[in-house]
Amino acid sequence: MSATTPSSQSPVDVLVVGGGLIGLVTAWRAARAGLSVTVVAERLGGPSASTVAAGMLTPATEASFGEEELMRLCVRSRDRFPGFVAELEQDSGASAGYRAEGTLQVAFDADDMARLGHLGDLRESLGLATQRLTGRECRRLEPMLAPSVRGGYLADGDHSVDPRALLQALRAAAERRGTVGVRDRVHRLVVEDGRARGVVLDSGGEITAGQVVLAAGVDTPSIAGIPEGVVPPLRPVKGQLLRLRTPEGEPPLVTRTVRGLVKGSPVYLVPRDSGEIVLGATQEEQGFDTRLTAGGLWEVLRDAHALVPGVSELEVAETCVGLRPGSPDNEPLLGPTAVPGLHLAAGHFRHGVLLTPVTGDAMARALTTGALPDYARRFAATRVTGGRAAVADGGPIEGGDQWT
Amino acid sequence: MSATTPSSQSPVDVLVVGGGLIGLVTAWRAARAGLSVTVVAERLGGPSASTVAAGMLTPATEASFGEEELMRLCVRSRDRFPGFVAELEQDSGASAGYRAEGTLQVAFDADDMARLGHLGDLRESLGLATQRLTGRECRRLEPMLAPSVRGGYLADGDHSVDPRALLQALRAAAERRGTVGVRDRVHRLVVEDGRARGVVLDSGGEITAGQVVLAAGVDTPSIAGIPEGVVPPLRPVKGQLLRLRTPEGEPPLVTRTVRGLVKGSPVYLVPRDSGEIVLGATQEEQGFDTRLTAGGLWEVLRDAHALVPGVSELEVAETCVGLRPGSPDNEPLLGPTAVPGLHLAAGHFRHGVLLTPVTGDAMARALTTGALPDYARRFAATRVTGGRAAVADGGPIEGGDQWT
Repeated sequence: MSATTPSSQSPVDVLVVGGGLIGLVTAWRAARAGLSVTVVAERLGGPSASTVAAGMLTPATEASFGEEELMRLCVRSRDRFPGFVAELEQDSGASAGYRAEGTLQVAFDADDMARLGHLGDLRESLGLATQRLTGRECRRLEPMLAPSVRGGYLADGDHSVDPRALLQALRAAAERRGTVGVRDRVHRLVVEDGRARGVVLDSGGEITAGQVVLAAGVDTPSIAGIPEGVVPPLRPVKGQLLRLRTPEGEPPLVTRTVRGLVKGSPVYLVPRDSGEIVLGATQEEQGFDTRLTAGGLWEVLRDAHALVPGVSELEVAETCVGLRPGSPDNEPLLGPTAVPGLHLAAGHFRHGVLLTPVTGDAMARALTTGALPDYARRFAATRVTGGRAAVADGGPIEGGDQWT
Repeated sequence: MSATTPSSQSPVDVLVVGGGLIGLVTAWRAARAGLSVTVVAERLGGPSASTVAAGMLTPATEASFGEEELMRLCVRSRDRFPGFVAELEQDSGASAGYRAEGTLQVAFDADDMARLGHLGDLRESLGLATQRLTGRECRRLEPMLAPSVRGGYLADGDHSVDPRALLQALRAAAERRGTVGVRDRVHRLVVEDGRARGVVLDSGGEITAGQVVLAAGVDTPSIAGIPEGVVPPLRPVKGQLLRLRTPEGEPPLVTRTVRGLVKGSPVYLVPRDSGEIVLGATQEEQGFDTRLTAGGLWEVLRDAHALVPGVSELEVAETCVGLRPGSPDNEPLLGPTAVPGLHLAAGHFRHGVLLTPVTGDAMARALTTGALPDYARRFAATRVTGGRAAVADGGPIEGGDQWT
């Protein structure tokens, strides 16, 4: 099952660089597929875009024009979630914080309602049926909505997960499946004879592997040693969020994910079983800027307050800033690159949590067979980083020559 | 000079309970007056209302109807500030963060301008001349003001201080003048034969003193052992603030304190030499609630953004919640109580920083002579806690009988 690496002494089959959701799901699924796996990350399961994310699994209410193919992948991943979570909870013994209450998307004013209406047509074309509701019907579902809310759409199939719980469950599951975690920084990728062989660590150690997966989010491009032309062109897209706390014993402010448009500005409230409500999020093209700003907080609070005024009463438990990894076409970069033995699993932009299950599945397939499954082929890393994409579903990698 | 306390072995002249601005200024001024002083506080110079406060010294732009007498005390304290700071910086060797740029008070809309106009008449009657400015004149002084700002008033004599720097300077000055600091909680006040004798500490130790000053802000009423009827009826008035950071090398967003009304809601921006800008503040009657709330942040950010939109770009360095100690008439409680040897210096509400110099002067006078100076007599603690106020300015305390 494992790719061969003639040069190293006791190599692992797969080395994953990155300790967020994408890195850990790749590790876990590869380990489940029978590969020996090591994960390297400075913060294994620690702070990252994964721990900042709200965890909406909402392709129906996320759909926007020009992203139809990506949305199909998102729908596949959303539909995979219940089975994925069942497997994960069995392997990890931990809850992934999955909630299946559906999502209510609401409009603040008539213009916002018109915008949501246009997207409703798109959703139908994608097979994502949603139910149009009047303002009164919205308030019947979520009584804390502002009286001014004009109407909305109910998406029964759009759910949520707690990314922090998901991350810890993935880490536990990967460990129980024999994955080795190494807390360290990658000093550089080792490429010999045109093939990825492993990494040298900051501590001086070296890990040799048959295949290497780079899954370090926005930090992926800065890993030293990636051959020119294969460095994934990812940009950070800043998001600022708040986490609010419901007072002990009080009912939750909203019972399902409530998202909406407020004069064209998107905002969401995602409730957790713990009473936490995540408010988000800004979307800012600012480079590697992780400053919490007055304007970011203000924008999120303003819009959340417009939809659900009661947020004002809640305690701010946490403010968060994360950097989403955006690729040139805002779609993920998956699977083999032009460098034999080197894979990417990065560039998930705003959809990293939602795409966790299909990414795990697709990467395990690529690592065991050498090629991405059909449904993921559009998202092959090679479309951006160059080189030939795998053409057959299921053909094993026998060496580097196939990709050079 | 010191009051006599027959029962204890090596008593100090004055024991101050409280490590905020009011406690430390009382200690320092008493020590300067030749008394031996000990200060007890859980957090000596640590987090308190003093470290949350923005530090506006702005009676002219603070003046409101019904508070004329308090405003006169505030003006006296403001005018005392330069000399006070000079003495403090000499005694402490540290900067108190005093800035004398004046304050610009602006109106967001015509209604706000009308409200400021009424207060302008009041200011004139208090001798607090301010200069009325058009919107354009305001923007000439502070170019980052929103184009919509309607006009305002310039108060050249309203300055600012950095309360955190002031607090550390007071602590250093008190220490250099021989004051002993004890980091502990007061278990209870000791009253024997109707006279305050000192305190028992949580650690079990005991401090005996000729006179005891309770200056623990909102915590003052909960000190055990205060005789019934003398417990000061203070309530906490919650304030939420933000501290923003100016990027290195960039000019400050405002060059002087800018405060204003936005649709009737007051807000201020206080700049520091470090580039920090303090935004504040809510005023909430919520009991002992120190939760940072979404609504509190939103209100301050909304109003600050309306006056100076550029705040949005700045990093949020800190969010703060403090509890102002409010007395029944919102005026401070100073000097001797009905219990011989027991003084109060509390209830400074929104004016603790501004009133620091006169409080220090007045308390030192009360501790050395037994009576408050004329200008502070209106604020005698006895007006609220009962008992006879000192009638003569300068008569020394010879025993408890005078107050029983």
